[in-house]
Amino acid sequence: MSNEQLDQLREQLDEINVEILELINKRGELVQQTGQVKEKQGANRQYDPVRERDMLNNILKHNDGPFEDSTVIHLFKEIFKAGLELQEDDHSKALLV
Amino acid sequence: MSNEQLDQLREQLDEINVEILELINKRGELVQQTGQVKEKQGANRQYDPVRERDMLNNILKHNDGPFEDSTVIHLFKEIFKAGLELQEDDHSKALLV
Repeated sequence: MSNEQLDQLREQLDEINVEILELINKRGELVQQTGQVKEKQGANRQYDPVRERDMLNNILKHNDGPFEDSTVIHLFKEIFKAGLELQEDDHSKALLV
Repeated sequence: MSNEQLDQLREQLDEINVEILELINKRGELVQQTGQVKEKQGANRQYDPVRERDMLNNILKHNDGPFEDSTVIHLFKEIFKAGLELQEDDHSKALLV
């Protein structure tokens, strides 16, 4: 059985995994910058459900599948949560300096 | 208080969210294709922990932060799970035809 086709698909999956990782980390940096700006402004750094809803709405507008909206929402909520945790870590470190 | 900086960062976040969505959906298509090839070959379509470990190792090799490896593993396990569910849905539909 030739596995050439499968090997090619797996190679493409490995490549796209790294591309997704790079974007998620780039997003993490943007979240950190947002936290720093808010901190300087004395603005509320905390979880903002309205902003999160706006982001999700914008994401779903662009969802052409194959993933269902519900799956996309689930995945992005995990990504948002990871970003918030990053901001909280930065804030704790800033307090310790 | 000028919110120009925050607005710019939020715009960048909205853009990167859509880029992440597009890659996640592109990954979903690759997973569907992989499932189809395996189905044709009569190969095991099921969850493959060895392949998942290999993918994670490859991803972590490329992780330059700011997210910790543990966060990256968590996010990708969710992405992998969503992909598997997509394959299972396709398989169920194929059986119904």
